[in-house]
Amino acid sequence: MNPQSTDEIESLSPDECFELLGQAAVGRLAVIVEDHPDIFPVNYVVDHGSIVFRTGTGTKFWNTMRHPCALEIDGFDAGTGKAWSVVARGQAHFIVDLREKAAADALHLDPWQPGSKSHYLRLTLDALTGRRFKATRPDIWNTPLWDARSELFH
Amino acid sequence: MNPQSTDEIESLSPDECFELLGQAAVGRLAVIVEDHPDIFPVNYVVDHGSIVFRTGTGTKFWNTMRHPCALEIDGFDAGTGKAWSVVARGQAHFIVDLREKAAADALHLDPWQPGSKSHYLRLTLDALTGRRFKATRPDIWNTPLWDARSELFH
Repeated sequence: MNPQSTDEIESLSPDECFELLGQAAVGRLAVIVEDHPDIFPVNYVVDHGSIVFRTGTGTKFWNTMRHPCALEIDGFDAGTGKAWSVVARGQAHFIVDLREKAAADALHLDPWQPGSKSHYLRLTLDALTGRRFKATRPDIWNTPLWDARSELFH
Repeated sequence: MNPQSTDEIESLSPDECFELLGQAAVGRLAVIVEDHPDIFPVNYVVDHGSIVFRTGTGTKFWNTMRHPCALEIDGFDAGTGKAWSVVARGQAHFIVDLREKAAADALHLDPWQPGSKSHYLRLTLDALTGRRFKATRPDIWNTPLWDARSELFH
């Protein structure tokens, strides 16, 4: 570990990580497909200390359950000038219980992209880590597409 | 493949994927650490058809080169109401040539977080895929932190 990194990169507590997970709605899920990682954005809800999301029935669906996976969220706090990143690692399980699905729906787990996303998966956590660090170049967060996205709501 | 997905999710051409990669500056890199995937945000530049980024010398550094990895970027275009995601998969190689490092620096590959990021890695691509789809819930892209981030620049 580089001493400089240790000084300047702050580890987040599990409580802070959960708070940030609860504030966001879209994360990037990394799964192992054959021998390589793949990533795709998913929307999710936090439910009873685990992460619930919906998916279709493609390759990714099966690979998500076959291997451990990881969900990452990140953001930038303009007030402090600090960026942060949270990674939740664990194993995804297929939700079959209709009451569990209804509970997830009640938390507004609506799919945010088209296509059938009829399956519900629950990521039970093996590890939850987060870090916060001063963005030495905050301008790098500013991209034309992020601008476009924010303009929609301003 | 779900027929509904095929209809509503548009595949991007390699040219479109490269164009989007060139417009963004921060992506999420997924690597395999032991038997599980891990993800972390990195800033990068596109150079001669490959992706160059800097890293420290921690576990992730070594794992990035030991296994294939994947870089994902995504965004939302308010003009069309469509979200998109691009994934570049490949193998990372350590850059030792000082001229190659200088070329990456000339493309403004400055680290955006503190700590020593003295190593340069080049991700040569095995696959480049992208998709664009109507965001059925554009509001989901709107989070307090994204707002905070955008306010810094408006």
